[in-house]
Amino acid sequence: MYRSHTCGELRAASIGEDVTLAGWVQKIRNQGFMIWVDLRDRYGVTQLIFDEERTSSDILKEAEGLGREFVIQVKGKVIERVSKNPQMPTGDIEILVSEFNLLNPSLTPPFTIENETDGGEELRMKYRYLDIRRNPVKENLMFRHKVGMQVRNYLSQQGFLEVETPYLIKSTPEGARDFVVPSRMNEGQFYALPQSPQTFKQLLMVGGMDKYFQIVKCFRDEDLRADRQPEFTQIDCEMAFVEQEDILNVFEGLTKHLLKEIKGVETGNFPRMTHAEAMQKYGNDKPDIRFGMEFGELNKLAQGKGFNVFDQQELIIGIAVPGAAGYTRKEIDALIEWVKRPQIGANGLIWAKYNDDGTLKSSVDKFYSQEDLLGWAQTVGAKVGDLILVMGGDTNTTRVQLSALRMYLATRLGLRDPKVFAPLWVVDFPLLEWDEETKRFHAMHHPFTSPKPEDIELLKTEPAKVRANAYDLVLNGNEIGGGSIRIHDKETQAMMFEYLGFTDQEAKEQFGFLMNAFEYGAPPHGGIAFGFDRLVAILGGQETIRDYIAFPKNNAGRDVMIDAPAKLDDAQLKELHLQVKI
Amino acid sequence: MYRSHTCGELRAASIGEDVTLAGWVQKIRNQGFMIWVDLRDRYGVTQLIFDEERTSSDILKEAEGLGREFVIQVKGKVIERVSKNPQMPTGDIEILVSEFNLLNPSLTPPFTIENETDGGEELRMKYRYLDIRRNPVKENLMFRHKVGMQVRNYLSQQGFLEVETPYLIKSTPEGARDFVVPSRMNEGQFYALPQSPQTFKQLLMVGGMDKYFQIVKCFRDEDLRADRQPEFTQIDCEMAFVEQEDILNVFEGLTKHLLKEIKGVETGNFPRMTHAEAMQKYGNDKPDIRFGMEFGELNKLAQGKGFNVFDQQELIIGIAVPGAAGYTRKEIDALIEWVKRPQIGANGLIWAKYNDDGTLKSSVDKFYSQEDLLGWAQTVGAKVGDLILVMGGDTNTTRVQLSALRMYLATRLGLRDPKVFAPLWVVDFPLLEWDEETKRFHAMHHPFTSPKPEDIELLKTEPAKVRANAYDLVLNGNEIGGGSIRIHDKETQAMMFEYLGFTDQEAKEQFGFLMNAFEYGAPPHGGIAFGFDRLVAILGGQETIRDYIAFPKNNAGRDVMIDAPAKLDDAQLKELHLQVKI
Repeated sequence: MYRSHTCGELRAASIGEDVTLAGWVQKIRNQGFMIWVDLRDRYGVTQLIFDEERTSSDILKEAEGLGREFVIQVKGKVIERVSKNPQMPTGDIEILVSEFNLLNPSLTPPFTIENETDGGEELRMKYRYLDIRRNPVKENLMFRHKVGMQVRNYLSQQGFLEVETPYLIKSTPEGARDFVVPSRMNEGQFYALPQSPQTFKQLLMVGGMDKYFQIVKCFRDEDLRADRQPEFTQIDCEMAFVEQEDILNVFEGLTKHLLKEIKGVETGNFPRMTHAEAMQKYGNDKPDIRFGMEFGELNKLAQGKGFNVFDQQELIIGIAVPGAAGYTRKEIDALIEWVKRPQIGANGLIWAKYNDDGTLKSSVDKFYSQEDLLGWAQTVGAKVGDLILVMGGDTNTTRVQLSALRMYLATRLGLRDPKVFAPLWVVDFPLLEWDEETKRFHAMHHPFTSPKPEDIELLKTEPAKVRANAYDLVLNGNEIGGGSIRIHDKETQAMMFEYLGFTDQEAKEQFGFLMNAFEYGAPPHGGIAFGFDRLVAILGGQETIRDYIAFPKNNAGRDVMIDAPAKLDDAQLKELHLQVKI
Repeated sequence: MYRSHTCGELRAASIGEDVTLAGWVQKIRNQGFMIWVDLRDRYGVTQLIFDEERTSSDILKEAEGLGREFVIQVKGKVIERVSKNPQMPTGDIEILVSEFNLLNPSLTPPFTIENETDGGEELRMKYRYLDIRRNPVKENLMFRHKVGMQVRNYLSQQGFLEVETPYLIKSTPEGARDFVVPSRMNEGQFYALPQSPQTFKQLLMVGGMDKYFQIVKCFRDEDLRADRQPEFTQIDCEMAFVEQEDILNVFEGLTKHLLKEIKGVETGNFPRMTHAEAMQKYGNDKPDIRFGMEFGELNKLAQGKGFNVFDQQELIIGIAVPGAAGYTRKEIDALIEWVKRPQIGANGLIWAKYNDDGTLKSSVDKFYSQEDLLGWAQTVGAKVGDLILVMGGDTNTTRVQLSALRMYLATRLGLRDPKVFAPLWVVDFPLLEWDEETKRFHAMHHPFTSPKPEDIELLKTEPAKVRANAYDLVLNGNEIGGGSIRIHDKETQAMMFEYLGFTDQEAKEQFGFLMNAFEYGAPPHGGIAFGFDRLVAILGGQETIRDYIAFPKNNAGRDVMIDAPAKLDDAQLKELHLQVKI
């Protein structure tokens, strides 16, 4: 062992002890007659001291040659510091070095290994092994480990079994694109990497395993949006002999446990909201309910008053921005510009200030009386001092646009406190969603999700209105988990495939094994999957997942550190019976 | 919830309670006026009773329609059984059914869902979801979960962090073949699936993470030998600031913990043996030391006595087969035929029986005196009643051949007791091994393994003699773990690559990121990886891994249940810029 103690554990109680430490040089202060070195490892920093009087000249010379990030081993005595540092856990002591061993020198690192570094994203990713030495990244990875252990131990204690499902499976064109893996031994054939273990966990239910979980890598070959990774980690779960209520209770239990054990936050029962209500109140199927600003529907109050723009529109909705009545014309114009940007695509914003004197001043005073505007204020829940913002247009688009504005303003107003945790179940998702591109319905969740029995009749007449036994767990405006009660009989599954545009042949080719399994005593079952990267990031108080992943890929799906993907040599391609065609 | 209790938990104490159970029909006994059904779930079996007197005729009719593996839900009262079954944990009670709900019927399963099934391997794999319902497979998967939890909790308590490393990495021609993954977004380029997280765990050490582990899937595109899987699971571990001794101690600790917690077996300190000694004594780098039958070297005693066959040979070795002096001529001839099979490839066997009267009778009495043969007996450790078997030939081949015979005989003699656990460290592996095909040295472990400093000089003169800081953990004749102290400086790593036949260019292209990392303060480090599938199987008392994997592949690398791999459609290939060339 290269050390007797870590760099994080020595205290005043150890003064007088002989110790051996090893680690990285964090900082050097050379006063000529005296050199202090901060030695760092995973556990902390300990100060080393070398001086003319007490240190041999050989060792002093070695210390003089040190640079940042050199790896050294030292032996020495723990002594009391003359000037203690109460900011450091080891700040009462230092090590008077008597033996010195340079384990490995270092080039000057391309960015500083400090909490706040001077390295940009690109550079940090290229030298990720150096970036990981920085406390924020290191702590994120330690935090991730802790969350993972808590998840596993909790579920295991609840009788869940972690079962590993295969990574080399079969490609199915439904849903996102698969990553595929050519098979050398089966000429011209390919495996696919799983987008999730969905069918396998259902087969485990058919197999009687009854409570399954797995923390597992999944793969999706999507054009990467910001903060998506081609490989990501899921907490994948499934239960048999359960109804939706059971799943919600079990995984609400898990989430409460994590909030309590990891964050020390006690939460009551999670509120529940239907998908329809979430869309109506927040324009969002994953509403952030840490703050209010719920939508008010103003059609009755805003239409038929001579304001043509509103009269023509399907939906008029508004929100109250707390304490923003004092916004200047310029600030409001900037908001209008913000919603008009192509990313949002709104036509504009109508505003009304709820002044301190109880009057309302709006951009549409020509058309609306004080009484009208007071009606608006009441409907959107505005108080004196608030700013009311109103949008109109077709229902779905306008809701999404106002939701974006709501989130933007909440962030600006500091209403999205990362230390506050507001979980929420969104239930009764639609079964199907219309796809403009292919002009047909797609499964909103996946084709194995069961429709609500009372809605099945609607499949023939109003498919868009059929609700599913599907639910999402939302935390602070992020979907951290989603799942459903599955179809478990062959007839319903065959009907679903038909509605989704599969021919019998396609359904059989792609999911024949599952349909067969349903004929041999499949129990009722359902499950949920959590996005582990996102869950960890949100529990950690952040919203970007990248710094909770040890070796993430960039937005082009590249690992810039190892420089992958890369070309294969011809012999390798030939063995795989492949030719590249660009 | 579909049930108030599982099928494994009701006891006499619950008599009189109303309960709801759900599960699969294991067995039906219909006596006309009375029907008993064994209802099974993951937790056990409970007997249901339906009878003319106490059950409504509707329900009785439903019960009459049941078949094996139907899924049902029943409500009823727990009553005392007239004839109790002490073999079943629930054998004191049965459920008098008052409500009945058929959840899903079942076709007749293609094989019986019993501990001993009538289904062959192929059929069981095709219907793996039914196979998993069988107790032996179900229990193996539960056992695997338990071992995994023990490993994680132990290592976590020792300060190890589980860090997920990427699955989409870069192909390197060194070692076994990679599975590759074409990148759609990076035309003509490929990721590779990791054969192990080797370089990433080393980069984590450079990153200061200091104690890493991961239970992780790895991939190798090998021509599959029996009981190999193209995807397999590793317990992957690495530590920084350690020497070989530290690694051995930590992972001996883990293995002891598993043996104790999982098997209730307390073991002393694990013996250690050099690779050279293992080869000399057992002809095997993973000797099974649950039994003796060590090799005796007989060159001095067997050569120069006129037996030409032996005189010409490099090595003469023998073993004592305990209690086998009574083998008939026919039995011995069968052994001779066994070693002559092409799989073993020996020329023959010389035998000597150590008779009860203390005399020796051999197949080469012409050449050897009783005294000579007594010398043999002494050297191979034969006792009265043993059979001595001797082989000669060139050193390496003969050792491997005699090792195969030793294992074969031990199995036959019942000396490989699956309830006995005999762990062993084999250390000081050679750094390099000669590859006849490519006519050059390959890294025996991998190119990152450090040579023993005192042997480095030999690299130039006798490379085959250079020992590495490499070690294997052997359990009952199986390598369950292997690792090494790694190279951590750029110069030694460059030298190794050169010895292994890499050009500078190749080394840089494939491992440039690692060589770069070594320039920024890489600490001394080393690690180990356990084959998790094998470890679980051996702890479970079996040697085949397939039944400890939920969804294994067959020897052609196919998943016969989902029928993968499979052809891709042309559109998918085109998107990937690929063409299949057969």
